Amino acid sequence: MWVYIRDLKNYVGKEVELRGWVWRSRSSGKIAFINMRDGTGIVQVVVEASSVDEETFKNTRKLRMESSLIVKGIVKEEQRAPGGVEIHATHVTPVQIPSEDFPINKPDHSIEYLMDHRHLWLRSRRQMHILNIRDTVLKAIRKFYWENGFIQVDTPIFTGAIGESAGNLFKIDYFDYGKVYLAQTGQLYLEAACMALGKVFNLGPTFRAEKSKTRRHLIEFWMNEAEVAYYEHEDNLKLQENLVSYIIKYILENASEHLHALNRDTSKLEKIEPPFPRITYTEAVKLLQKKGYDIEWGDDFGGDEETEIAKQFEKPVFVTHYPRKAKAFYMQPDPENPDVVLCDDLIAPEGYGEIIGASQRIHDYDLLVERLKEFNLPVEAYDWYLDLRKFGSVPHSGFGLGIERTIAWIAGLEHIREAIPFPRTLYRVHP
Amino acid sequence: MWVYIRDLKNYVGKEVELRGWVWRSRSSGKIAFINMRDGTGIVQVVVEASSVDEETFKNTRKLRMESSLIVKGIVKEEQRAPGGVEIHATHVTPVQIPSEDFPINKPDHSIEYLMDHRHLWLRSRRQMHILNIRDTVLKAIRKFYWENGFIQVDTPIFTGAIGESAGNLFKIDYFDYGKVYLAQTGQLYLEAACMALGKVFNLGPTFRAEKSKTRRHLIEFWMNEAEVAYYEHEDNLKLQENLVSYIIKYILENASEHLHALNRDTSKLEKIEPPFPRITYTEAVKLLQKKGYDIEWGDDFGGDEETEIAKQFEKPVFVTHYPRKAKAFYMQPDPENPDVVLCDDLIAPEGYGEIIGASQRIHDYDLLVERLKEFNLPVEAYDWYLDLRKFGSVPHSGFGLGIERTIAWIAGLEHIREAIPFPRTLYRVHP
Repeated sequence: MWVYIRDLKNYVGKEVELRGWVWRSRSSGKIAFINMRDGTGIVQVVVEASSVDEETFKNTRKLRMESSLIVKGIVKEEQRAPGGVEIHATHVTPVQIPSEDFPINKPDHSIEYLMDHRHLWLRSRRQMHILNIRDTVLKAIRKFYWENGFIQVDTPIFTGAIGESAGNLFKIDYFDYGKVYLAQTGQLYLEAACMALGKVFNLGPTFRAEKSKTRRHLIEFWMNEAEVAYYEHEDNLKLQENLVSYIIKYILENASEHLHALNRDTSKLEKIEPPFPRITYTEAVKLLQKKGYDIEWGDDFGGDEETEIAKQFEKPVFVTHYPRKAKAFYMQPDPENPDVVLCDDLIAPEGYGEIIGASQRIHDYDLLVERLKEFNLPVEAYDWYLDLRKFGSVPHSGFGLGIERTIAWIAGLEHIREAIPFPRTLYRVHP
Repeated sequence: MWVYIRDLKNYVGKEVELRGWVWRSRSSGKIAFINMRDGTGIVQVVVEASSVDEETFKNTRKLRMESSLIVKGIVKEEQRAPGGVEIHATHVTPVQIPSEDFPINKPDHSIEYLMDHRHLWLRSRRQMHILNIRDTVLKAIRKFYWENGFIQVDTPIFTGAIGESAGNLFKIDYFDYGKVYLAQTGQLYLEAACMALGKVFNLGPTFRAEKSKTRRHLIEFWMNEAEVAYYEHEDNLKLQENLVSYIIKYILENASEHLHALNRDTSKLEKIEPPFPRITYTEAVKLLQKKGYDIEWGDDFGGDEETEIAKQFEKPVFVTHYPRKAKAFYMQPDPENPDVVLCDDLIAPEGYGEIIGASQRIHDYDLLVERLKEFNLPVEAYDWYLDLRKFGSVPHSGFGLGIERTIAWIAGLEHIREAIPFPRTLYRVHP
């Protein structure tokens, strides 16, 4: 019976069949050891010349790293083994033995080399742990929305409408229609959908044609956006801190083995629960000035500034009420100070930077038109978006969470390129 | 306390606050009735002049379709009402009253008009039911994979590699790198990932630059693909029928109210359980010839042919073993007849066409190179894909499920453009 390594503990004393690959192997005289992986775990297979036929033992000695093989054997308890079991082989069948060395076999490959071999690098233990963490983060996000009555609304990638700024958009020829853009955000569509369904979210790929080479940027990255009708700034902040806290709790409960395998200090994650600290943009500027940063009210924050702000707190911190002119046209002005808007950036601890951008959206038709003009945007391109303010407009709010940045923070990764299976950066679309 | 309409039955006798929109309203003399929606349901609000202040009653009479409003009132049991309750208002606060008629207000708008107003059309009851069914289908798919030990591996949209044929690919300028393509499939990447993780799946948008205008085609559509190491043709068929049956069962258990609201005959869906019937391509051709179709062995099937085949069965039917030359280069030849390959198309009942394309993949390096040449494909572009056959190659299989076609079948939609929130067709990228 074919069994996955993850489930072996339920088969102690039984004969099973494993299908997988050689992780490491060694042999001496009449005994051979195969550390075998199958994508769900690693187990040691003991092959004794006295317990198997001659052919099997001969084959076993030919195996090398990443040979594929099928093993039949008895599951034995073994307290010293990682999963608590090992396999005493009765039969070993090689499926394919590579004729050259597996390319990922040294601890000191350059990052360029590893990225060139991403299709094989994924088999390394580190990458398997990261991919499991990514899978668990995506699960947590969905479960949060399902438990809170949200409907998934998939927003389009091809779009004639413009999100925030045209400069960072990829253009494409769309049949006889002319140029269309690849979506930078699904927000405008979610705003339409939340007027139909109340609470909505999306989760999918997003594109920015940005010439950034920092460790926090990808050209193609995944984003989760949520939008809720009748939510105002304060509701929005609570939704965000509940989501982020839920993700962390879920990861600690369901993927801590993978975090520990990456040597992540999980005690830092255990502190993440609501409420999160909040400071206004204005307070943040004063804080940075006091620390000696050359920054003035009205400037945007860069990575260094975000890290400095984050350092003051053990939890993610909301920076709220940015200057109107530094943010997107659709953000609702603060009724108490129309020079700032009802928005927030959520900055992760430990220098992982902004993981959420959020705001209450303008719901007044005339004000929105005024803002489009103030930002020199073509009002006519926003015809349908403006319709939402003509027919039963309501206050509404939402945000976008960067998936790879969130994973990088949770898993403690230096660069977000490891947080996605096949990263696309400025100079890389291969493999 | 703000409550959603879906949850009202838990608040009988209590005062609640509802936030939403006017669905329909009417008034006569000293009483007004508002059918109010909030995205989770519709409830009747009774406003009696004698129970509310004068301002509230005056405001109520000004409300029109899709006005936004906040209602305070007492939840009363009302057996004749759809949700079993109605609201006796104590206060009505209009949020915004449109100054013109809501554009979607007749039963006979043209499809072009409705699509032009997709951002508002989403608020119709029919579209809300369809979006709920879509959400439930996506949930079912994920739950199936989670319960069966699959890991989500998000495959890239930007790709240098070519899936099946270059003709249907969108091209894009990628910085100084040159042209890249928008992925038509993530299969090649999932093949790499299943060698690392065993069982993997993706679920996201896909693009085909196909000049098709049929009711089964979208330019941008969602696809779920799965790939499993060590799965052969037979395992692959079982996985597909289990997935599709799981989706149907889950929908019947969790979204039957939405199916009934669309007048879907659910008795037809109740018959969908494993095993599914199977016929070979060769048998299908004979069947079609007998029915008078002008088709010869080697030809591909069109929509009419698929519908004719589906008519013979009450369940989805697997058509297997297509001619090698009619299918993609990577499909494993049948060991008993190398002119056909170990593949299947799964054709939905009731004329909804092909919902799955699947195959066992070639795992032998030399055979794969031979096939690339036979199909005149540039071998060097498949360098990393060929690597998978050099380092621990194993038999493996997978498939792609078209999300919108599956939804169209389940919900009984005539055209798949209603199965996605913002459809992109040959002539439409707006709104």
